[in-house]
Amino acid sequence: MFRKVLIANRGEIALRIICACKEMGIRTVAVYSEADRHSLHVRFADEAICIGPPRSAESYLSVPAVISAAEIADVDAIHPGYGLLSENANFAEVCRVSNIKFIGPPPEVTRLMGEKEKARQAMKRAKVPILPGSDGVIQSEGEALEWAKSVGYPVILKASAGGGGRGMRVIRSPEELPALFQAAHTEAANAFGNGDLYMEKFVEQPRHIEFQILADEHGNVMSLGERECSIQRRHQKLIEEAPSLQVTPKMREEIGKTLKKSLEAVGYQNAGTIEFLMDEDGKLYFIEMNTRIQVEHPVTEMVTGIDLVKAQLRIASGERLSSIVPGPVSINGHAIECRVNAEHPEKFTPSAGKITAFNVPGGNGVRVDTAQYAEGVVPPYYDSLIAKLITHGKDREEAMSRMRRALEMFVVQGIHTTIPLHRRIFEDEDFRQGRFDTKFMERFLAKGKEQSSS
Amino acid sequence: MFRKVLIANRGEIALRIICACKEMGIRTVAVYSEADRHSLHVRFADEAICIGPPRSAESYLSVPAVISAAEIADVDAIHPGYGLLSENANFAEVCRVSNIKFIGPPPEVTRLMGEKEKARQAMKRAKVPILPGSDGVIQSEGEALEWAKSVGYPVILKASAGGGGRGMRVIRSPEELPALFQAAHTEAANAFGNGDLYMEKFVEQPRHIEFQILADEHGNVMSLGERECSIQRRHQKLIEEAPSLQVTPKMREEIGKTLKKSLEAVGYQNAGTIEFLMDEDGKLYFIEMNTRIQVEHPVTEMVTGIDLVKAQLRIASGERLSSIVPGPVSINGHAIECRVNAEHPEKFTPSAGKITAFNVPGGNGVRVDTAQYAEGVVPPYYDSLIAKLITHGKDREEAMSRMRRALEMFVVQGIHTTIPLHRRIFEDEDFRQGRFDTKFMERFLAKGKEQSSS
Repeated sequence: MFRKVLIANRGEIALRIICACKEMGIRTVAVYSEADRHSLHVRFADEAICIGPPRSAESYLSVPAVISAAEIADVDAIHPGYGLLSENANFAEVCRVSNIKFIGPPPEVTRLMGEKEKARQAMKRAKVPILPGSDGVIQSEGEALEWAKSVGYPVILKASAGGGGRGMRVIRSPEELPALFQAAHTEAANAFGNGDLYMEKFVEQPRHIEFQILADEHGNVMSLGERECSIQRRHQKLIEEAPSLQVTPKMREEIGKTLKKSLEAVGYQNAGTIEFLMDEDGKLYFIEMNTRIQVEHPVTEMVTGIDLVKAQLRIASGERLSSIVPGPVSINGHAIECRVNAEHPEKFTPSAGKITAFNVPGGNGVRVDTAQYAEGVVPPYYDSLIAKLITHGKDREEAMSRMRRALEMFVVQGIHTTIPLHRRIFEDEDFRQGRFDTKFMERFLAKGKEQSSS
Repeated sequence: MFRKVLIANRGEIALRIICACKEMGIRTVAVYSEADRHSLHVRFADEAICIGPPRSAESYLSVPAVISAAEIADVDAIHPGYGLLSENANFAEVCRVSNIKFIGPPPEVTRLMGEKEKARQAMKRAKVPILPGSDGVIQSEGEALEWAKSVGYPVILKASAGGGGRGMRVIRSPEELPALFQAAHTEAANAFGNGDLYMEKFVEQPRHIEFQILADEHGNVMSLGERECSIQRRHQKLIEEAPSLQVTPKMREEIGKTLKKSLEAVGYQNAGTIEFLMDEDGKLYFIEMNTRIQVEHPVTEMVTGIDLVKAQLRIASGERLSSIVPGPVSINGHAIECRVNAEHPEKFTPSAGKITAFNVPGGNGVRVDTAQYAEGVVPPYYDSLIAKLITHGKDREEAMSRMRRALEMFVVQGIHTTIPLHRRIFEDEDFRQGRFDTKFMERFLAKGKEQSSS
């Protein structure tokens, strides 16, 4: 196992990784910008090195600064956390040539998964379902009808040359196809001087479902089941849960098998997340892979009992999956995570500043991952996430009831947070019944506005 | 289910019960003394009623004050927590005549278990092993030899008339019995004017092991396994864990069965704990039963996944165990609890006062039950427990490593606490190896003194 690890990150995930290292007897080195001098990740690491001014580009994102710190501190490995340098293949390469273990997949794999179309094709070859699209231009109504029939309605026509919704039509039945095809063609021709159209499967109300995987450096991959992350605002997840109400044990097992095969084929290593869209019929389509630990990893930890950050460290030190996760993975109960962001709960504008009171909820089934504290400061330079509130219960009902009472007991003063917004979401009947998709927040916020203006 | 419950307690357990009620949709009524006006149990209950001055005898222990509050607030039930009125059969009786459900066993059972010798005999009849003792006076060396042979050495001779160690002798073999019998007889006769002696089985290095049970109001009892509570100072538990390293699955099952039978025989209801001594050979002897929720109940919750306070509420409202705990109980991983007391960590003198900083640890596998907060006050009138720090892991090693890092990250300023003592205990090799008994703390503190004086 590593003797000393540098954590190339800040905030709650830096502290999360420090906790895992402490529990494993690994010495830790924090890096920090001048704005984070009094942060808990600095306080609780064994060593801490200032790597530059507040702006990320000059500190946390500076490969030379981070690598210099790693060399000065003489570490064996670097854990990049999420965001920042975590999916930067060049950084992973510099680590490699500096003889420092990068805790994540090899740079080649990061690079492959970072190029979305290449990743899509790699997954397609490995029989992972991807969102169907026509191979190039659709030449005629007849071809369009045939293609639509092969993938099932609804489908969407898009202008090959365009964007911004011009020449775009959603088609819900063969009857309406001819007219819409003509309209789209004409609109595209008028707008872009090119009437070429292509088609894709259209998902009206997609859910965002993702699978957590672990892969060792000996060619073994395993799936730890899924997370439901449809509650998003501007493509930022707000609430995540595990398991998904939409995924049956049989689906979980089948997708797990497919992912195992496909990721073994691409030589994946360490932790990763495969993101899918789920359509109204419960079919999953690959979107992309994140080649790092995910913000919402705790919900998987709560239901599987597997510590994912410790698993990352053990994998990177060469251990086999069969010793890290000796038994079969079982899903126990239900877990939900709320992201507590330092922002105005309705306007979603960042809310930096000094925290004047910070009282986290505790008790049975409640976990809080945070690097904030009373009298702490939220600097304006970084991600607005200040705490993750996670609850676990024997079922979704209990996890939700724990979340409601934990949200009630979570006191943060001095700055605005998303806590009041979360409280309202947990009172929403659709949310409580599990009736939601990625457009839930749009509808939810519109409802709120209607109510407040009426 | 109850509509409204009064919590006749304070501190962390009052807040713990409020959390359970909130999660179940039950309205809560807090009672508080003038010293607890700003306590979190007052803040988070739906209603709060001041029931008297700081001294417990005039507030929390005043049956008329508590009952008046319950009547004013029109509650269905009272949860007594632990300590205070929780094992007061008269209080349970007043609740009954006031038509308020007491969340605990019927007063008759509380009374039976409260009279230690009667409880011992009831348990003996039900085939629960009790610490063997001679039936009355041992008349001669010959009788003493015979009795000692029947229970096995070591045994202890005690003066029937006495106490304070006079006339008391531990006998470790038949060879030394005659001389020690004579010496004890003479000493007792001289000290008390009565040389009568009786004998008991003697346990040199006992462990304290206790079993958690739940019983519904339809005659069904189930055991939720054991807790190891040998780390005590002056008969006050400091650290508890579940499961015990000394209890095999077979023992757990057998004792569970015996307890089920015996407690069904006495008509037990609600949650309860059966305390045992364990001798060096792993044999268990009944000491006493606590007819209430225990301080250390969270370690059982962590390994079984069963919320004991919710179970108490559901049982008291008439639900059957078969619906509260539908499947078989399994023990998952290992949990440890440290009691954080407001006291000097070496002198053990109470340390009341204002808290100036209070930062609780969080993260994976860490649970904190507390009603304290930054800027809170520890009043000098009550129990010194201010927080319970509980960790859970896949095995004892992981639970301990989490505890070490959580203790390191737990910041309390303004008062003294037992946190530094706990940190030292978790570095102790004997503790880490599980080599301890109820005299561990004596030896541990003596070691510390030797070191600090050398």
